Amino acid sequence: MKKKPLPVNVLYAQSGGVTSVINATAWALIDEARKKGGDLGEVYVGSDGIVGVLEENLFDVKRIPEPVLARLPYTPAGAFGSCRFKLGTPEKKPDEYERLLAVFAAHQIGYFFYNGGGDSQDTARKIAEYCKGRGHPVRVLGLPKTIDNDLYGTDFSPGYGSVAKYIAVSVLEAALDVASMSATSTRVFILEVMGRHSGWIAAASALAQKRVGDPPHLILFPERAFQAEDFLTRVRESVESRGFCVVVASEGIRDREGRFISESGGQDAFGHAQLGGVAPVLAQLVGTRLGYKNHWAVSDYLQRAARHLASRTDWEAALAVGRGAVRKALTGSDGVMLTLLRTAGSPPRFRVGEIALDQVANRERPLPPEFIGAGGYGLTREARRYLLPLIQGEAPLPYAGGIPDYVRELPRRWLRKRLPAFAAR
Amino acid sequence: MKKKPLPVNVLYAQSGGVTSVINATAWALIDEARKKGGDLGEVYVGSDGIVGVLEENLFDVKRIPEPVLARLPYTPAGAFGSCRFKLGTPEKKPDEYERLLAVFAAHQIGYFFYNGGGDSQDTARKIAEYCKGRGHPVRVLGLPKTIDNDLYGTDFSPGYGSVAKYIAVSVLEAALDVASMSATSTRVFILEVMGRHSGWIAAASALAQKRVGDPPHLILFPERAFQAEDFLTRVRESVESRGFCVVVASEGIRDREGRFISESGGQDAFGHAQLGGVAPVLAQLVGTRLGYKNHWAVSDYLQRAARHLASRTDWEAALAVGRGAVRKALTGSDGVMLTLLRTAGSPPRFRVGEIALDQVANRERPLPPEFIGAGGYGLTREARRYLLPLIQGEAPLPYAGGIPDYVRELPRRWLRKRLPAFAAR
Repeated sequence: MKKKPLPVNVLYAQSGGVTSVINATAWALIDEARKKGGDLGEVYVGSDGIVGVLEENLFDVKRIPEPVLARLPYTPAGAFGSCRFKLGTPEKKPDEYERLLAVFAAHQIGYFFYNGGGDSQDTARKIAEYCKGRGHPVRVLGLPKTIDNDLYGTDFSPGYGSVAKYIAVSVLEAALDVASMSATSTRVFILEVMGRHSGWIAAASALAQKRVGDPPHLILFPERAFQAEDFLTRVRESVESRGFCVVVASEGIRDREGRFISESGGQDAFGHAQLGGVAPVLAQLVGTRLGYKNHWAVSDYLQRAARHLASRTDWEAALAVGRGAVRKALTGSDGVMLTLLRTAGSPPRFRVGEIALDQVANRERPLPPEFIGAGGYGLTREARRYLLPLIQGEAPLPYAGGIPDYVRELPRRWLRKRLPAFAAR
Repeated sequence: MKKKPLPVNVLYAQSGGVTSVINATAWALIDEARKKGGDLGEVYVGSDGIVGVLEENLFDVKRIPEPVLARLPYTPAGAFGSCRFKLGTPEKKPDEYERLLAVFAAHQIGYFFYNGGGDSQDTARKIAEYCKGRGHPVRVLGLPKTIDNDLYGTDFSPGYGSVAKYIAVSVLEAALDVASMSATSTRVFILEVMGRHSGWIAAASALAQKRVGDPPHLILFPERAFQAEDFLTRVRESVESRGFCVVVASEGIRDREGRFISESGGQDAFGHAQLGGVAPVLAQLVGTRLGYKNHWAVSDYLQRAARHLASRTDWEAALAVGRGAVRKALTGSDGVMLTLLRTAGSPPRFRVGEIALDQVANRERPLPPEFIGAGGYGLTREARRYLLPLIQGEAPLPYAGGIPDYVRELPRRWLRKRLPAFAAR
């Protein structure tokens, strides 16, 4: 009996909250896969992450016009659609796993690449284990991506360097604004940044500091319980000594009892509390208790998609994991997530490595306690040594008519479905 | 009797809310004044606007180190300090006017340049009229600056083009983010922008639109009464037809009874209500009534100081009014504000003109009603024709260590005071 050839088609999908450089990873992966020519077959994309894979909403990147594809490395957010969707366990949701195998088989998928954060790597792990258990010949690789920088096993996550740069620059600029006005007007400025559980993004706000006393004067980390009286004392000290105070607050700060300082009451798809509105709460506190005129901003999605201010280091890392994933898959890697490893040099460089998915999944990488200094409101030197390399370099992009020339909407010419309908949502 | 020589020293000060290009105006004025050599004397700056002039807090730009001065055209916010301070009338506050004349005389000021928005031009007008009435030989010129674009008599105000570009790009980027996630997560994104009385900034959010239906899907202008039911219907229509909805709301929107949708309760120095927090109110409305997962952002000071994303057209206009002010002052202009005039060509160019301060002061330039289209929630073609030229071109700036190389704090070597102390504040 003739041995059936192994499937060699590639399937890529994006998952979780987007970043300004995840499409760079996608583009590099596609480009590398095409260069490999005969070793790989077609390159398909699942629309809206694993949801599109389950629903067999796939398309062939060959059918994306070249001028569109060429703009992908510069386009923020998830051009192929992302999702917040967690697979059940094979025991509880066997139909989801059967379906994935059916889709892989129907489209001769030999390589499945899933690009996302912690939850997405867990999804990749489950799929990898299930395929292995069933003897299904598909290599599953996770590609790292998250603005939260909380992925275990990689020096940093592509997406984080760019949000870090955006926040550092935005705080510097807003601080110059407040400093200009503080003689007769605004004294306190509060910026709320993302970071549900960890202060990685808030920490980046200090990267424009050159000297002790430079803004931001107070960083509120979710790792430290918010203590209103201490906070107010420090705000007053800053205003009295410098004339103004710049505060950066992580959305996830809580009081000593563990209650979020602000909670919208909603929940996301995974049952996490949906947060927002820490800045106005702090602003009201400062206004009521100290009487200072204040302003506040909430950067929210602006920070996550700000490709116009991406870090070159971050962008190059995003490209590197895309190319690296294809190379590693071809040399046998399976059930792993791509990682970034820092060289010892100064400035450090980053090369691509890998780690087993079961080591990554459901683990988090907390902001190290030794990174928080200045009485719990600032950064240590050690933190700066780690963080500064990640925001180095600019990543210019083409503009057209005054606006970045992003891919607005990717034309999706669907692959013909070969299977019965399946409703994942 | 020998005729006393006319005073030829220059005094410049910045006033009102800052912009990302007001320091470009300052630099161009200083540079042009130095080039004029013998026609002009020393170039002084008043710290914190008219407050510093009253308090005789002046410094000589000669004493600013050259490497610092060279970075001024790229530095956002008000490097010399700005203020929110409105002079009284000469009848009610004669001491303020006497003091200004005394400061002008003590430092032989022949040219006073005041760089600000509507309130600041009114200050310039009062000073000009008082000096003329008293026969004091000083030429007073206003330089336009405001992100609000509400200055009368100029095609646009330097500062507005850059905030317009920032908002247009930020909305495009955030919209790509929402579109990526909307299959399983966020459906509605709301961005709150500045604009207390007018929708100029909100209008700019539509400048990245290429086709009908492109985000933002709804713009809430302060010129139109906010009608919750109509708003909710349109949000639902957008989500049902496109999968998501992007809303841009001006901070100053009110209901039919004229009540601000959100009001912090505070007041600024001029008795204007201090606003903030429209976005969370709208988000709660959308969540409660329509049940859509939503995100919201408030750009606040981030938008006003975002030099990293300045418009080249705007930046060049800021430079042009700085140089133009010196040239016009030397050829006899007095009691005028510099203006920008649009040429008829396509693309249009801008040249520098002037208008009498008494025509500008206390007048506003509203967003023309014919600029608001799409049922009150969008822009007309006419609006685009006016607005698009203002965001053309990028204005790159030097970075150092991943961060824009801005002037952080200008060294201020004070002029020796020649007058008794005077407390303006």
